[in-house]
Amino acid sequence: MADFLVPGFSAGAASAGLKKGGKQDLGLIVSETPATVAGVFTKNLVQAAPVVLDKERIQSGKCQAIIVNSGNANACTGAEGFEDAKAMAREAADALGIDEKLVLVASTGVIGQRLNIAAIRQAVPKLAKEVRPNGLLDVAKAIMTTDKFSKTAVRHEEVDGKQFSVAAIAKGAGMIRPDMATMLCFIVTDLAAEPVLLDKALRVAVDQSFNVITVDGDMSTNDTVLILANGESGLSISSKSCADRFQQVLNEMCLGLALEIVRDGEGATKVVSIRVKGAQSEDAAKQAAFTIAHSPLVKTAFFGQDANWGRIMAAIGRAGIAVDPSVVEIWVDDVCIVRNGLGCGKQAELDATTRFSLDKYTLLVDLKRGSGEATIHTCDMSYEYIKINAEYRS
Amino acid sequence: MADFLVPGFSAGAASAGLKKGGKQDLGLIVSETPATVAGVFTKNLVQAAPVVLDKERIQSGKCQAIIVNSGNANACTGAEGFEDAKAMAREAADALGIDEKLVLVASTGVIGQRLNIAAIRQAVPKLAKEVRPNGLLDVAKAIMTTDKFSKTAVRHEEVDGKQFSVAAIAKGAGMIRPDMATMLCFIVTDLAAEPVLLDKALRVAVDQSFNVITVDGDMSTNDTVLILANGESGLSISSKSCADRFQQVLNEMCLGLALEIVRDGEGATKVVSIRVKGAQSEDAAKQAAFTIAHSPLVKTAFFGQDANWGRIMAAIGRAGIAVDPSVVEIWVDDVCIVRNGLGCGKQAELDATTRFSLDKYTLLVDLKRGSGEATIHTCDMSYEYIKINAEYRS
Repeated sequence: MADFLVPGFSAGAASAGLKKGGKQDLGLIVSETPATVAGVFTKNLVQAAPVVLDKERIQSGKCQAIIVNSGNANACTGAEGFEDAKAMAREAADALGIDEKLVLVASTGVIGQRLNIAAIRQAVPKLAKEVRPNGLLDVAKAIMTTDKFSKTAVRHEEVDGKQFSVAAIAKGAGMIRPDMATMLCFIVTDLAAEPVLLDKALRVAVDQSFNVITVDGDMSTNDTVLILANGESGLSISSKSCADRFQQVLNEMCLGLALEIVRDGEGATKVVSIRVKGAQSEDAAKQAAFTIAHSPLVKTAFFGQDANWGRIMAAIGRAGIAVDPSVVEIWVDDVCIVRNGLGCGKQAELDATTRFSLDKYTLLVDLKRGSGEATIHTCDMSYEYIKINAEYRS
Repeated sequence: MADFLVPGFSAGAASAGLKKGGKQDLGLIVSETPATVAGVFTKNLVQAAPVVLDKERIQSGKCQAIIVNSGNANACTGAEGFEDAKAMAREAADALGIDEKLVLVASTGVIGQRLNIAAIRQAVPKLAKEVRPNGLLDVAKAIMTTDKFSKTAVRHEEVDGKQFSVAAIAKGAGMIRPDMATMLCFIVTDLAAEPVLLDKALRVAVDQSFNVITVDGDMSTNDTVLILANGESGLSISSKSCADRFQQVLNEMCLGLALEIVRDGEGATKVVSIRVKGAQSEDAAKQAAFTIAHSPLVKTAFFGQDANWGRIMAAIGRAGIAVDPSVVEIWVDDVCIVRNGLGCGKQAELDATTRFSLDKYTLLVDLKRGSGEATIHTCDMSYEYIKINAEYRS
């Protein structure tokens, strides 16, 4: 297992009984000293209490701890829910002996039910004792909901003869779409960073990772990506060489985690990258790519391993962008299945079918109208998706 | 069975072997004399050959026959597909001894494969012999694809002491959304009508019926609604009393057929009407209603009979319209489950769950921001939907 140590950070998990079966459902991430913080949150107008609280608190640019729970989203819970989020932070602050304003909160799970704050209050002292240098992996497990596996990434880099580290954990399986959705991601690094630069770097990374994946087109009330930078390495992103390396590492880590989320999409059996080029703009390319990715008919054809390009053409035609169907080209990996808007024949379909049976492939749509281009990543839609979501609360 | 006779019209069905198992897959509707025609077609930019042909031909305002096939959509088939559509019309015209320009064509089924025009050519003479006054019901069966039952409606009305009749058949189960989707509807009446008035009446009826239903959000390349009016009754919609009655009857018939399509939605177990009021405009209300209706998380909760209002709130929050979550109210039939953006408690959820277990209910969302209002109709998403669409071409 990769070494998850990032100097100055520790973490741990415990159970508050919010999830069934005594599974761990509370996590705590702590920096020895107040760290610089940046965050990106859901754009859904219905925002969970912890999101509202965090957006307020990160204005200070400082954070020393994050407390997170799974099993309950603390969303659509009104003023009382907001008090619950604050109480959760206060419990963590008291147990750690730090300022409660330096504690951020995240929640994931069912919407619309009050958090069992008494249970959390009781569990926090134990949680604080579980905190240890390599504990981030435990938090990665504790924040899982319908996730089948935990999502983690770590990098140790050298710049100008000095070392820095970045570690990240994420969760998310359903309700995932651009602008993020029930997904949480926590990143820690021992670099030093000004809040403005950290924020900018985070937004660049999120835009080309978590914002270009979609599982089911739904957008959650709780999406949160937080990054803490505590400066322990003695390196700072105010230096260009360090900033460049950090941005590259952050981009790669976020994209890696985002693809892990797609791979773990509820009921997913495949990861499909959809690349649209030749659109009149990047936005138009994105719109076409997401229309294809969100089409239930296309997603079920992915699941059925059926090179049913007619459904892809139909999705393109209703995407609300300028399209001339008679010039469209569609490729599956190295196989061209549509040229000039027409099927390429039996052999091409047979070849395409072998690509559709892979776990992972790229669908390329060339609209041949301009230079706009975008790539997004999605999964198929299976029986399992229905099962998971029809029975989620039962 | 209702009397499907409309004076001056006859119809019949036959098999050309396009569907498996020798099922009937060809239909012909004939008027004794050239009738006035109006049509509404898919807004998908990828349009099937018969749609392109019909849009051209209805410019004349006249039509004497419609030939329709199931099993193949004749879409994404290029110039050759267009010739196939014309050939289909020509065969029907020859068999009936009428002008081929007075023949319209419709197709439904798999996209992207050439039509077996030789098989159709061979079957048309037999088809022409099957045509009889009460044959519309046979055509209703012949145009079924994944439909579980045929959709028909008929009305016999009296105005100013004279009788007129309207009969309609429709198909459509998946790929259904506003602006229609693999849905076909053919309506015949013995009223007389100017093309412009007939077109206007049809658009009014379609807007409040086929355009406010959605099964899976996909929009087909083949959607077609055609109406023929042959004047045999001696009544004309140029008279206001007749026009008013006709509009009312047409609205009711189209809405009835549209709801039948939803009830027969691929894998559907429930029909859910989603009414949004209190929006800033009718468009905003529609947008919110369709966002709720297209959310896979909401649709699977319908299937799971789970009053999971958090998913409805989350859908509202990402609908792209102005929303103040803290004033939103949600009702299921007579049960209020959300007030001021918060759940109404255990008893309300229990009551709501009994409503969610019904075959048919109404979800009312009150945004309390204005007077914009819209109602749409959708169904749930089940295992069966996945099964049908993952295996459709196999």
